Amino acid sequence: MPEAVAVAASTQAALDAKTKPRGSLGRLEDLAVHIAAIRGTPAPGRLPAAVVVAAADHGVAARGVSAYPQEVTAQMLANFAAGGAAICVLARLAGAELHVFDLGVAGPPVPGVRDLRIAPGTRDLTEGPAMTRAQAGQCLAAGAAVAAELADKGIGIVALGEMGIGNTTSASALAAAFLGAEPEAVCGPGTGLDAAGLERKIAAVRRGLEVNAVDANDPRGVLAALGGFEIAFLAGLAQGGAEHRLVVLLDGFITGAAALTAERIRPGTSASMVAAHRSPEPGHALVLEALGLDPLLDLGLRLGEGSGAALSLPILHAALAILDEMATFDSAGVTDAGG
Amino acid sequence: MPEAVAVAASTQAALDAKTKPRGSLGRLEDLAVHIAAIRGTPAPGRLPAAVVVAAADHGVAARGVSAYPQEVTAQMLANFAAGGAAICVLARLAGAELHVFDLGVAGPPVPGVRDLRIAPGTRDLTEGPAMTRAQAGQCLAAGAAVAAELADKGIGIVALGEMGIGNTTSASALAAAFLGAEPEAVCGPGTGLDAAGLERKIAAVRRGLEVNAVDANDPRGVLAALGGFEIAFLAGLAQGGAEHRLVVLLDGFITGAAALTAERIRPGTSASMVAAHRSPEPGHALVLEALGLDPLLDLGLRLGEGSGAALSLPILHAALAILDEMATFDSAGVTDAGG
Repeated sequence: MPEAVAVAASTQAALDAKTKPRGSLGRLEDLAVHIAAIRGTPAPGRLPAAVVVAAADHGVAARGVSAYPQEVTAQMLANFAAGGAAICVLARLAGAELHVFDLGVAGPPVPGVRDLRIAPGTRDLTEGPAMTRAQAGQCLAAGAAVAAELADKGIGIVALGEMGIGNTTSASALAAAFLGAEPEAVCGPGTGLDAAGLERKIAAVRRGLEVNAVDANDPRGVLAALGGFEIAFLAGLAQGGAEHRLVVLLDGFITGAAALTAERIRPGTSASMVAAHRSPEPGHALVLEALGLDPLLDLGLRLGEGSGAALSLPILHAALAILDEMATFDSAGVTDAGG
Repeated sequence: MPEAVAVAASTQAALDAKTKPRGSLGRLEDLAVHIAAIRGTPAPGRLPAAVVVAAADHGVAARGVSAYPQEVTAQMLANFAAGGAAICVLARLAGAELHVFDLGVAGPPVPGVRDLRIAPGTRDLTEGPAMTRAQAGQCLAAGAAVAAELADKGIGIVALGEMGIGNTTSASALAAAFLGAEPEAVCGPGTGLDAAGLERKIAAVRRGLEVNAVDANDPRGVLAALGGFEIAFLAGLAQGGAEHRLVVLLDGFITGAAALTAERIRPGTSASMVAAHRSPEPGHALVLEALGLDPLLDLGLRLGEGSGAALSLPILHAALAILDEMATFDSAGVTDAGG
């Protein structure tokens, strides 16, 4: 992409003229260059951010793969709408808009949450495909449409978040399928499984891979067989984000699985992504490596909801502000040692 | 400290009641507990922050130990006053006050910078003590007085920053003396030394240790022999901060050396400290380890000025906001799986 290379070079030149030793802001400078390349300009300015939380239920939750009962997905939607969840607090603090979408939560719709329901949860992936290919396509299209909508209203950074009891099992299955990894290598305790629960989760992933006989060369098929509605929606959001030159800010393992799905469906999508943090979930490091992304934070976060993405937003804003607001050696009359 | 233990326990209990799996916000929760213990209350609320940048010149700069000429210290003071330096941008973005102090910069005073000048730079530490014990005491007292002043006006977090051409050499000498480390183990390229410059720096540190025959059991003597006026001031600021229950937020290697000095003069001071980031300077990891601090960020920052501290401030604010603003399982009607 020669445009991106030219923009990156101009941006680095602009950073090198600022009153600081060359490269002394480390990854903050790399991040500024990366964001400039995504936006297609060496002067991206300040970028308004939105956190998008997608929620859905999962048939596989019936297999005892989560520490929490399924009803918690709907309860947390209400908590998002009321502003009391972690992501509400962190998005507010980072000055980001928060948008919550219901892609298929069991139970009645929650006021204040946008209703994009496909079905009241996926089917159990250990017994066959979690969703139809048509449903997967519907979720991808819905995500892409939301990206277009956000881009239209001037958003420059879209942070991905999710909620769905059982969704680390779906994410683990997707990661195992796309990476050719053993279920043991990608499954972890999620939000707090004990050892027996982790065994059940590994067995569910193994069974899902066997029953569905997925083919990694058919990424839409993999998504339909093992995905969740919210994960498919987030994959579409990542694709639409890339298309509209949004910075696509990933959160933890589940958004990572959505990002990997997006990249496998349309290679090159990951060029628009920034990894906010590395979660302790073992599959996450593998997914980030496959995407070629180096996370900004490593703070042991394993909540999801977009919490790590929101927490890293000030670092993105800082990279942009350095580029936008710092004086140059010339303008400030400071001696430049070069180097 | 039974009070700190009790506060920590109450704070963790408050976090455990929030609508998230226990411990799922990882180090953000540890940080909230730590800040609560420092402040002496499980409900510290939001804490206004101030970044304090202390600047001074160093006689040892004449030894060719920096990539930049000494005049840059004074030029950067003017840049701080004009708002164009990295720390100005990052402090603004984090909503923190910025206070710049001149502890002894060569050349005329800079308008907009608070004048606490001891002398126009320290003496060359390779030829004898960098300052007198009386001067060291004067700097320590000045730093403690500024901490009291900030506490009085309601500041809760004080972030330490510095500027002074040659000051990584002073910091390296202090670290080598206090840690009993070889000069090679603590010296790095600073803001951009080449190999020959690094050799000169190592030689200067070795010579400083020999000429001054410092005794690590006499920390004030070590500070006077090898320190800088800004480093001594920041050590006093850390001590005063601890006394006034301020959260003392460290930046990179130089503020780390100041913090280690403060801890050696008055053991226990480090209980009030938070390490913002780990710099690539080899001595920094050793200093943080000696202080028992685990940095929040690892982004290859090597600018100083308090830039890493300012960049980490939103993480501290996030930890406090989680504690202050999140709903509980009870209040939000969310099923708690415990665990």
